[in-house]
Amino acid sequence: MIIDKLCARVEERGPLCVGLDPSEDVYPADFLWDFSPPAEAALRYCEEIVAATADLVACYKVQIACFEALGVEGMRAYRDLLRLLRAEGLLTIGDVKRGDIASTAAHYAQAHLIGEFAADFLTLNAYFGGDAVHPFLPYLASGEKGLFVVVRTSNPSAREFQDRLCEGRPLYEHVAEQVVSWGQPYRGRFGYSLIGAVVGAHREPLLRLRSRFPTLFFLVPGYGAQGGTAEDVAPAFSRGNGAVVVAARAVLAAHRGKPAARARFAHYAREAVLAMREDLARCRA
Amino acid sequence: MIIDKLCARVEERGPLCVGLDPSEDVYPADFLWDFSPPAEAALRYCEEIVAATADLVACYKVQIACFEALGVEGMRAYRDLLRLLRAEGLLTIGDVKRGDIASTAAHYAQAHLIGEFAADFLTLNAYFGGDAVHPFLPYLASGEKGLFVVVRTSNPSAREFQDRLCEGRPLYEHVAEQVVSWGQPYRGRFGYSLIGAVVGAHREPLLRLRSRFPTLFFLVPGYGAQGGTAEDVAPAFSRGNGAVVVAARAVLAAHRGKPAARARFAHYAREAVLAMREDLARCRA
Repeated sequence: MIIDKLCARVEERGPLCVGLDPSEDVYPADFLWDFSPPAEAALRYCEEIVAATADLVACYKVQIACFEALGVEGMRAYRDLLRLLRAEGLLTIGDVKRGDIASTAAHYAQAHLIGEFAADFLTLNAYFGGDAVHPFLPYLASGEKGLFVVVRTSNPSAREFQDRLCEGRPLYEHVAEQVVSWGQPYRGRFGYSLIGAVVGAHREPLLRLRSRFPTLFFLVPGYGAQGGTAEDVAPAFSRGNGAVVVAARAVLAAHRGKPAARARFAHYAREAVLAMREDLARCRA
Repeated sequence: MIIDKLCARVEERGPLCVGLDPSEDVYPADFLWDFSPPAEAALRYCEEIVAATADLVACYKVQIACFEALGVEGMRAYRDLLRLLRAEGLLTIGDVKRGDIASTAAHYAQAHLIGEFAADFLTLNAYFGGDAVHPFLPYLASGEKGLFVVVRTSNPSAREFQDRLCEGRPLYEHVAEQVVSWGQPYRGRFGYSLIGAVVGAHREPLLRLRSRFPTLFFLVPGYGAQGGTAEDVAPAFSRGNGAVVVAARAVLAAHRGKPAARARFAHYAREAVLAMREDLARCRA
């Protein structure tokens, strides 16, 4: 099962998930001008980052928004990047956060699990309830596909709805409970389900959720450039597994302020990944 | 302001919003085989539906999932369809239901408000809180763009999270309250804000929300093929305005079981739209 492959990667290579969010904000000066259209820059930048880091990370999360912003050619680059990653046997999370129901959700499942934009895992938004998840389940039966449902994020306004007390517990805990129940039939040999949860790098929610839902695998964004520390993400782990921690900008823009950034950005990305692996290794001990 | 244009269209042409969700499920037999790739069929089908109904409807909602399922060529068709609609002066809602934060949300805003996939209005998911909406607000300043935030849907599992009681009121009412507050600076001459709400065709939530939030414009899916009746959607209106009601399958597959479906599907779509306009006119009286 794909979740077992992910757990095995965490054991072999550590729990870092590099977030591929290519944009002008992260490129070295002048990088963009070497390529046309800009989607070509996005693809080439990610390819170099991947080549420099693949042996050190559990998986890659590809941010579709960065590619959608580049139009039709951006979508072609998104497709090609996923194909390249999967062809190299690397594990991929399509960070699409789609959320809809019925035939619309079925179209998203087709697009992002078996169609041109296929990834191994997808992120989903479940504000619609189980109807937003059920159309994806037929694709989980083979064990080859997995989902991460947004449960509790670490942005400041997460508290507006996610933390609201509903029947004595924060809303996000009700969402997590449903995620566990949807995922119950899909548990692999490491004990985790094909349906995991997106939980941001905040200590308290991670502590609560890890203690109550031991079979839930966590995708943890918000580490590094977004402010989360290794101590914040530590409770996500259970005996060193059970979570991958995303770093995007901290890897993609690791060249900032360093010499020969244009030529060596991939080298600096690798250095940043090595440092974060060490940082995370301490907190998993 | 674009919301005033939409209100004016509701007054001139009635409150129907045709949902363009092209797929094999709605085409007449053999339609698909006349085109290659399938994205071309999706584009041509929608074009014919639009040509047959444009004088009768307030706006069109384009379902991006149907196009994503067709890959890169599907995204090209989505772009071309939106361009065609906007070039003809028709009002468009990009039904993308994106929900993310920070630079990711900013990329979505760029993609779907000013980039290749630009529509007049977008649907958004606000489970992340205000951070999922703020990156879109700069584009509202000109008055040329609007948003519809998912508040309360009409699918069976909507009750799992949306209806949960938080501090004595259903979660969706808290969401609606925030939507009103985000939209406060963007009210047009009809009194409605550039930030509206997606509220499904269920009578009770529509009654509650209309009475409490008189400046909230509603995008109401779930009418027609999805089971909602004119009586269900009636409370959405305030003096005959304040809402558009979506019909997709009931229009796109109106040819079902009728003679010469392949040649006359657009004619049957027009007949269906005329019938729904009458149905809705009664409930707005």
